[in-house]
Amino acid sequence: MNALTVQPETPLLDTIGSVEDLRRLPKARLRQLADELRTEMISAVSMTGGHFGAGLGVVELTVALHYVFDTPHDRLIWDVGHQAYPHKILTGRRDRIRTIRQGGGLSPFTKRSESAFDPFGAGHSSTSISAALGMAVANKLAGSKRQSIAVIGDGAISAGMAYEAMNNAEQADNRLIVILNDNDMSIAPAVGAMSAYLARILSSRSFLTLRDFSKKFLKILPKPLADRARLAEESARGMVTGSTLFDELGLYYVGPVDGHNLDHLLPILENVRDAPHGPILIHVVTEKGHGHPFADPNAEKYHAVPKFNVVTGEKQKSAPKAPTYTNVFADTLIDLAADDDKIVAITAAMPSGTGLNRFEKAYPDRTFDVGIAEQHAVTFAAGLACEGYKPFATIYSTFLQRAYDQVVHDVAVQKLPVRFAIDRAGLVGADGPTHAGSFDITYLASLPNFIVMAAADEAELRHMVATAASIDDRPSAVRYPRGEGTGVDLPEKGVPLEIGKGRIVRHGSKIAILSLGARLDEALKAADALEARGLSTTVADARFAKPLDSRLVQDLAAGHELLLTVEEGSIGGFGAHVMDYMADEGLLDGGLKVRALKLPDRFQDHDNAGAMYADAGLDAAGIVRAVLKALGHNDLSDMTVDRPASA
Amino acid sequence: MNALTVQPETPLLDTIGSVEDLRRLPKARLRQLADELRTEMISAVSMTGGHFGAGLGVVELTVALHYVFDTPHDRLIWDVGHQAYPHKILTGRRDRIRTIRQGGGLSPFTKRSESAFDPFGAGHSSTSISAALGMAVANKLAGSKRQSIAVIGDGAISAGMAYEAMNNAEQADNRLIVILNDNDMSIAPAVGAMSAYLARILSSRSFLTLRDFSKKFLKILPKPLADRARLAEESARGMVTGSTLFDELGLYYVGPVDGHNLDHLLPILENVRDAPHGPILIHVVTEKGHGHPFADPNAEKYHAVPKFNVVTGEKQKSAPKAPTYTNVFADTLIDLAADDDKIVAITAAMPSGTGLNRFEKAYPDRTFDVGIAEQHAVTFAAGLACEGYKPFATIYSTFLQRAYDQVVHDVAVQKLPVRFAIDRAGLVGADGPTHAGSFDITYLASLPNFIVMAAADEAELRHMVATAASIDDRPSAVRYPRGEGTGVDLPEKGVPLEIGKGRIVRHGSKIAILSLGARLDEALKAADALEARGLSTTVADARFAKPLDSRLVQDLAAGHELLLTVEEGSIGGFGAHVMDYMADEGLLDGGLKVRALKLPDRFQDHDNAGAMYADAGLDAAGIVRAVLKALGHNDLSDMTVDRPASA
Repeated sequence: MNALTVQPETPLLDTIGSVEDLRRLPKARLRQLADELRTEMISAVSMTGGHFGAGLGVVELTVALHYVFDTPHDRLIWDVGHQAYPHKILTGRRDRIRTIRQGGGLSPFTKRSESAFDPFGAGHSSTSISAALGMAVANKLAGSKRQSIAVIGDGAISAGMAYEAMNNAEQADNRLIVILNDNDMSIAPAVGAMSAYLARILSSRSFLTLRDFSKKFLKILPKPLADRARLAEESARGMVTGSTLFDELGLYYVGPVDGHNLDHLLPILENVRDAPHGPILIHVVTEKGHGHPFADPNAEKYHAVPKFNVVTGEKQKSAPKAPTYTNVFADTLIDLAADDDKIVAITAAMPSGTGLNRFEKAYPDRTFDVGIAEQHAVTFAAGLACEGYKPFATIYSTFLQRAYDQVVHDVAVQKLPVRFAIDRAGLVGADGPTHAGSFDITYLASLPNFIVMAAADEAELRHMVATAASIDDRPSAVRYPRGEGTGVDLPEKGVPLEIGKGRIVRHGSKIAILSLGARLDEALKAADALEARGLSTTVADARFAKPLDSRLVQDLAAGHELLLTVEEGSIGGFGAHVMDYMADEGLLDGGLKVRALKLPDRFQDHDNAGAMYADAGLDAAGIVRAVLKALGHNDLSDMTVDRPASA
Repeated sequence: MNALTVQPETPLLDTIGSVEDLRRLPKARLRQLADELRTEMISAVSMTGGHFGAGLGVVELTVALHYVFDTPHDRLIWDVGHQAYPHKILTGRRDRIRTIRQGGGLSPFTKRSESAFDPFGAGHSSTSISAALGMAVANKLAGSKRQSIAVIGDGAISAGMAYEAMNNAEQADNRLIVILNDNDMSIAPAVGAMSAYLARILSSRSFLTLRDFSKKFLKILPKPLADRARLAEESARGMVTGSTLFDELGLYYVGPVDGHNLDHLLPILENVRDAPHGPILIHVVTEKGHGHPFADPNAEKYHAVPKFNVVTGEKQKSAPKAPTYTNVFADTLIDLAADDDKIVAITAAMPSGTGLNRFEKAYPDRTFDVGIAEQHAVTFAAGLACEGYKPFATIYSTFLQRAYDQVVHDVAVQKLPVRFAIDRAGLVGADGPTHAGSFDITYLASLPNFIVMAAADEAELRHMVATAASIDDRPSAVRYPRGEGTGVDLPEKGVPLEIGKGRIVRHGSKIAILSLGARLDEALKAADALEARGLSTTVADARFAKPLDSRLVQDLAAGHELLLTVEEGSIGGFGAHVMDYMADEGLLDGGLKVRALKLPDRFQDHDNAGAMYADAGLDAAGIVRAVLKALGHNDLSDMTVDRPASA
C-alpha cells in the first residue's frame, strides 16, 4: 500500500454505521469523530480527486447537524452539494465514497435519488433557502413540526435568488433554519458589498459563546413568534441596537459562531432546535479547507483537486496533451484586448474556471467579477455595450441558464453587442447532469438577432473569439467544451470568420455529416469507418448554428443521399434549424434522407465525458450506427470503429 | 368633442418642446408644469388605455429629474418602462403620446430605438440598476463624469437581480444614483420582508427636509469617496446610528423624500448631482395613481386601464364574448382544489394577471405571492413538491424566462411534479416584444422529463389543468394565450387527458395541418379555404408538444401529401420535435412534404395580437399561403380567406 492508497485509522468512525449510531455517542467523543471524519475525507479525495475545501470546512458542522437534528425526518439541505462529502460519509455512503465522480459511483453533489438524507439535489448554488422554505411551508400546511435547515455559503448568498428567498422567509414560522457558512470564499474569494458587510460583522464582534447566546436568545424564546407584531418590534428595536441586515430581512440573526468548535456549535443548535424561534439565521464561521494536508493550499484552485499523495500533498495530474479551450479563450481575449481598449470581460464568481484570472492579470481594470450573480452579469454587460464597450460575458453554459431572461430581454430584444463566451458547452463528465451544457444552442439560436458559434477545436475557438470581438451590431455567442483541445496547430492570431459560413473538411459523395462544434473529430473518424464500408462521406463543420450557412446546406443536400447533423446539445438546436430550413426550401421534398444526432432525451448520470458521449450515440461509432440505420442496414452488430493510433 | 376626447388646457406644457425648454423655466413654474403634465397624461390614457398609476405617481419626479440632470447625456433609466409616459411627453414624444400601445405607435415601455432619452429598454422589472451600473462603469473607464440614474420601485427592488446589482454598486464610484420609488405597490401590493422594512423606515422617520438633508449629506461631501476606507468607516458607524440596509449594501441612503413635493425633490437632486457622493440611493415616496380622476381607484386593477371617460372615470371596456383563459384556469384550479387539499398555487407578484386573486379568495392559505421573484417562486414550488404538495407555479411565459435555470436544475433534473401554468403564451399584442411568450415551447420541450401542453381553446385548458393536477411523477406545463377564449362550451369539470395523445378535429386526405395551441381556429378556417380550392384538408390538435403523439404523426404522414405544423412559438419548438421524430423514423424519406409554421425570426413590434399573427403568417391566410407555396403554386395573389360571419 503506497501513500496514495493508505487507509487511515478511524476506530470511532468505523463504529458509526448510521446517524442513530452517531446520536448515541456522548458529546465528548464528537471531537474525535470529526477528526477521523476529516482524515477519511482526505484519504478518499486523495484517491478520487474532487471537491475538497468546502467539505473539509464543514466537518464539525456536519457532525453537529446530524447529532442535533433528526435527519432525514428533518430536512438538511446543503447549498451546492459539493460540500456534502462528509455528509455522505455519515449517512450510509461511506462504503462508496471512493467511487465519487466516477461512472456508476456517488454523485459529487447531493442527489435525491441517491439517499433519503439528500432531500434536495444541488449542483448550482443559492437554491437551498428557496427549497427549504418550500418544504417548511409544506410542513406548516400539513401541521408537521419538521424543520428544514439550509446550509449556504457567504458566496452563494450573494445570488439574487437567496435574497428572494430570505425576503419570503417569514412564511416559514419556526420551521426554517438558515446556516450561513461564512468562509469568505465560494470558489473564488467572495466579492461585493455582502461579503464586505459580513467582514465588518466579524471585525466588530467576537465569537458568540453559549453564555452570550443564551442571554440574547432566551429573551426571545418564551413567546411564540406566531406573534408577528412582536417580531416587528424586536426588529425595529434591533435597528438601533446593532441588528443586522438579516434581521431586517426577517431572519433572526445569531452569531458569529466558530464553526470548528463543537462546544459552541452543539448547544446553540440544540437551543435553536428546541425553541420556537421564527426564521433564523446562524452565522457560522469556518475555514475552507480546514485541516487540509497540503503545505501550500491555493485559494481558488483548492476548491477541487485532482488525485494527490496524502503524505506529500503532491498532485497526480496527467500532463496535458493540448491547451484547454478555457486557456485558449483567455489568451486570445488577452491578445485582442491589447489592440482594442473597449474589450472588457465579466465573470460571475468563476475567474479561474473561465480563464478570466489570466485576463485579469493583464487587464485588472477591464475585468469584472460580479459574484454569483449571473442575472446581473448579463444586464451589466448590456449596460457596458450601450456605451460602446465590447463586453465578453464569460459564463458556463449551465450557469447562463440563470440569466436567460436577461439574455432575451436586455440583450437580444435590444440587439446589443454583448459577446457570450460559453465554456463547458456539451457534456462535462464527472460533474454530471446538473452541470451539463446541453441546452444553450436551443435556447440561444431560437432568439432573433443572435449569432451563435460553436468551436470544433481550439484553433477555431481562437478565430471565433476574434469574430465575436468584431461583431458590433448584435449579440453573439461562442460555445466550447470543457477540457483540452484536440492538439491542432494554433494560429498566432485569431482572424474573424465570415459570418454564417461553414467549411467542408472532407469531400465525399454519398453521406454528408454536418457537424457543429467539437464532435468534428468523431465525425471524421466515423467518415473513415464509413469509407471503409464503401460509403463515401463528406464532413463539414458548420461553425455557425445561426445564421445557418444556407448555401452549404443546399450543396450538401444536392450532392448526397443522406445528410446527418451532429451537435453537442439537446433537441431543438442546430439540427432543428437545419431541418427547418431544408423543409422550408423544399429540400426534403425529393426524398433526401435527413437525420439529426443530438443529446438524448434524458439527463445522463455523471461519468467521464467520452463514455457519456458514447452513451449518447455521439461518438464515431454512434455516428456510423446512425448512418447505417438511416440507410436501412439492419445488421448493426459490427459497429466498432477503429481509432487511429493517435487518438 | 365629447368627454372622452376632450383636450385639456395646458398652456405652459405647450411651450415645452424639449428638455432645454424645461430647463429654462424658473423653478417656481415647475409646479404648474407638473400639474399640466398630469392632466395631459390622464387625457392621453383616457383615449388609448394603458399603464396609468405608475406614470401618475412619478410626474413630479420626471419633471425634477429632467430639470436637474443633463438628459440624454446623463442616462436616465426607468425600471419597467411603463412608468415612463410622462417622461415620453417631456422628451419630444408628446405629439405621438395618443398612439401609445397601438400598431405603429409609441411603445408602452422605454425603447432604445424610439428615443435617445431611452438609454435602456425595460418591459420586465428590476433590470435598471444593473444596466445603469454597466453604463456607469463604462463611463468610469472612459474617463467621463456622465451620471447614470436608475428609477426603481419598491416592488421591483424585491427581485434578486436588483440585489445582485446593489451588491456590486461600489464599482460605480459617484456615477450611479438609484432612486427608490416607494409606493408600496408594483402591480399588486408589494410583499415580503423588504416591503415591511421600507414601511418600518417610513414609520420611524419623517420626510427629509432640505435642511435635514444638508446637515446629513454635507458631512460626507468634502472628502471624495474614492477613499473607500472612509466609506467603510461611515458605514460601520452607520450600523449603530440608524444606518439602513442599503448603506450596508454599499449605497449611501438619503430619504425618505416626498416625491410629490418639488421644493424638496429639486434641491436634493441638485446636491446629489453636484457632489462626489459614491453610489447613492434616494428613497422617494410617491402615491401610485397620484392625482387620478377616478372616484374609486382599485389597487391592482389600477396598474393599467382601458380607455375611460375623463370626466366620469367610466371605463370603456367592450363586453367579453367569452371568458378569458386566465379566469378559466383560475376557476378550474379552484374547482380541483376543493377535492384535493394538496393543490397549492404560487404567483410572482401577479395575482390578478394570473387569476390567482380568485384562487386566493377561496384558499388563502394555499396561495403564495412571493413578490417579483420568479427564481425563488420555482424552487419554492420544487420544495413544496418534495413534500407531496401539488404546486401550480403560475407565471407568464415571458417571466418564466427569469427562472429558467430553476426549471432545469431544480425541477426537471429532479423530475419533481411542479405544474407550470403559463399564461400569456404566444404574442400578447399591445405590450409588444418584451412581453411576447415566444420561447417557452422551445425552452421547455427540450428538457427531459417534461410534459408540455398547449390549449387550443378554453375547454381544452380546463382539461389540461386537470391533467396537470393528475401528473404526479414529473413536471408538466400548460400554456395558454392572453385574452378571451373562443367561446366554446365549457365542460363543468376538467377531465385528465391521455398523456401524449392529440385529436383529429377535421378529416381530409391531401393536406394535414397539425396545430399546437390556440391557432386551431385559424387552421380550421384555412382548411375551409383550402377545401374551397379542392384541397382536402385534415386538421389535428396535437395538445402535447411533449411527449409527441407519434401515432398521430405517423397517421398524418401516411395519409397526406403535405404535413404542416402550426404553433404560437419560436423555431426549435413543436415543429422541430415533429420533424425530428419524422426524420428519425424515416417518415420524411419517401417524399412527404413537411413545413413548420412558427413565429418569425425577428422581434415583432407591438400591435393588436391579430395583426401580429397575420404579420407572422400564422393566421388562416398565412396558413393557406404556406400550403399553396409548399404545393408549388406560384400565383399567391388571391390569398384572402373568407371569414365566417361568426368570427
